[in-house]
Amino acid sequence: MLIVQKYGGTSVGSIERIKAVAQRVAACKAEGNQVVVVVSAMSGVTNNLTAMAHELQKEPSPREMDMLLSTGEQTTIALLSMALQSIGCPARSYTGGQVRILTDSAHTKARIQKIDQEHMRQDLDQGKVVVVAGFQGVDEQGNITTLGRGGSDTTAVALAAALKADECQIYTDVDGVYTTDPRVVDNARRLDRITFEEMLEMASLGSKVLQIRSVEFAGKYNVRLRVLSSFEDGPGTLIVSEDESMMENPVISGIAFTRDEAKISVVGVPDVPGMAFKVFGPISDANIEVDVIVQNIGADNTNDITFTVAKKDAAAASRILESVAKEMGARGVEVEDRVAKVSLVGVGMRSHAGIASRMFEALAKESINIQLITTSEIKISVVIEEKYLELAVRALHSAFGLENPPK
Amino acid sequence: MLIVQKYGGTSVGSIERIKAVAQRVAACKAEGNQVVVVVSAMSGVTNNLTAMAHELQKEPSPREMDMLLSTGEQTTIALLSMALQSIGCPARSYTGGQVRILTDSAHTKARIQKIDQEHMRQDLDQGKVVVVAGFQGVDEQGNITTLGRGGSDTTAVALAAALKADECQIYTDVDGVYTTDPRVVDNARRLDRITFEEMLEMASLGSKVLQIRSVEFAGKYNVRLRVLSSFEDGPGTLIVSEDESMMENPVISGIAFTRDEAKISVVGVPDVPGMAFKVFGPISDANIEVDVIVQNIGADNTNDITFTVAKKDAAAASRILESVAKEMGARGVEVEDRVAKVSLVGVGMRSHAGIASRMFEALAKESINIQLITTSEIKISVVIEEKYLELAVRALHSAFGLENPPK
Repeated sequence: MLIVQKYGGTSVGSIERIKAVAQRVAACKAEGNQVVVVVSAMSGVTNNLTAMAHELQKEPSPREMDMLLSTGEQTTIALLSMALQSIGCPARSYTGGQVRILTDSAHTKARIQKIDQEHMRQDLDQGKVVVVAGFQGVDEQGNITTLGRGGSDTTAVALAAALKADECQIYTDVDGVYTTDPRVVDNARRLDRITFEEMLEMASLGSKVLQIRSVEFAGKYNVRLRVLSSFEDGPGTLIVSEDESMMENPVISGIAFTRDEAKISVVGVPDVPGMAFKVFGPISDANIEVDVIVQNIGADNTNDITFTVAKKDAAAASRILESVAKEMGARGVEVEDRVAKVSLVGVGMRSHAGIASRMFEALAKESINIQLITTSEIKISVVIEEKYLELAVRALHSAFGLENPPK
Repeated sequence: MLIVQKYGGTSVGSIERIKAVAQRVAACKAEGNQVVVVVSAMSGVTNNLTAMAHELQKEPSPREMDMLLSTGEQTTIALLSMALQSIGCPARSYTGGQVRILTDSAHTKARIQKIDQEHMRQDLDQGKVVVVAGFQGVDEQGNITTLGRGGSDTTAVALAAALKADECQIYTDVDGVYTTDPRVVDNARRLDRITFEEMLEMASLGSKVLQIRSVEFAGKYNVRLRVLSSFEDGPGTLIVSEDESMMENPVISGIAFTRDEAKISVVGVPDVPGMAFKVFGPISDANIEVDVIVQNIGADNTNDITFTVAKKDAAAASRILESVAKEMGARGVEVEDRVAKVSLVGVGMRSHAGIASRMFEALAKESINIQLITTSEIKISVVIEEKYLELAVRALHSAFGLENPPK
């Protein structure tokens, strides 16, 4: 098998840990696999470099930022290659530029356009482990670019796609994807499999195991992705396309949640076209990200437009909307800044009616008031008062029997 | 004027110092010059990286070492470019590979073969300061190479040669080249000018202001080299070719010295051909560097072959020679491991007789016994007991009036 492994900053955070990673890589190779390893900067390094940059320039030049930060991964690839060689495992390191991970020129958030496989194929055929710097590439003009934070996951998936690898293994400090956050629910269960679509919903809703972008990428190029722990052995969680998943998908795969949200309502909005744009135009101009949006018509033929933002943006958003509301003849702006969002995620819910009502029933039993509801193909989200968050997650986890593996 | 400036690790050793360097560079540009800046890794960085490598591999792979160490300079170029931009001075950084400092593939000690000027010219014409990583290059296959310790000086001189710069300024922590070490002689004097040839003798004899290799390079391509301080203003010392020097060169420019040498003699060597090779072959095979070599015929038609090595190599050298001496029928091996070498250097001595006798007279006055004498075109060296070193240097400095500028 051809396997791409990716180790994050914590996994390579010290010389001892780099040695442990080398052992893991060598073991995988000893089983007869060809191995490409992608590594991040040692934990702390990127933050240190960023701090130095900010001492020099308030908004450091993006090109120079990329020049600076790319040294972090370059350091790790050299050290890991040495660690591999020292245990008799031939290895060769490459910067992003050297394997020609060609990107556009959008410094600090570049997108991969093409990957040259020639060097890697040659080394793999000679029995070498190929060690590639994550997070970085090079543009047409030869400038060093970076893919943005978490870009090492994207590098790994992109290499796996280019090499048509049998599996892309993302090693992290957790041993897989769970039905929900184990810190909230004691008997949260590690999932053996999850679909790309579910993973995307889980990731974007706060289960920060994988970068969303890398999951999208993996889904698009059908790369088998596995999340597993670099500190303990175990099968981890395999992320696959829906048809590769199971004959019968479990109805609900997991429960994601987000704290620290605020709910903002513009109430009594006249029911004429263009109102939504009048609300969200200025919010977007202020670079405030909006999460859930709900609109419904009240009895008096006026609308209430309600949405959620990160709590830190609530004050700015309501300030902007005060004048907007006046201008459009709305009754006013209401802010509720202690809300949380809880979402059930599962590709199986498509074919199952009644999931929503079971969810609402479970919450009602705990007397948790639902403030907003939104649904998508594979997810139902509710916004509730923040203090009920843990209670709600536990109630739902139990109501849908997520502690038990699917039969 | 087109000026290449080089700042060493101490000069860029902290964010504050990088800011100070930026001020100096911007000032040079504000005077109407085009400026290319070459920088080393921040002091301490290279040692840290090397220490990490040695924790992983006893003899780290040279290719991976270069991959690792080259991150040091890459960090500095990004930071210095930010510092320049933050004070309104447009700047752009380049790794060795990006300006295509093409080298051979001798990792950790690569030699520069070619430099591509295109990028640099473009930036300079657009009024930008070009910031280049010292010490590093790239080979034909795209592997990162390094030029070996002190290679940043070589980078600077090579860029100056390629760009036909008007001057190559090497900023260090001393304000120029002195007649001798000011820590030994209080009234040692900074030289306004010195010739390449003299500088080579001074450098190789222990005045470690500049790397020998960069001086050779500068001499070969006739690059005007100036050594000056990055901490205080001043004209520094200009290093020029002899014909550009002065009408009448001073007889003696300076006094160089080396401590920690050992003197080894193979005595009573039969006077037949091939004996010198029998002595130095095995020494060279053991990678021991030999400095002074003297041979003279004794009264009994046997030779004494005497040479000096670094003190740390004395034991190994004498061990090797014990058996060699037996084999070649020599009387024995004598080791004297507390010697030092003192050298008068000056291109003017070529045309002046009597320098040697004045030197010997000055030493005799202080009752310093001379153990060995060697001479070259522009230098006379003596080996003496180490404890007399300071006394000898002071006596000679005064005997040749080096505290006074030449008339």
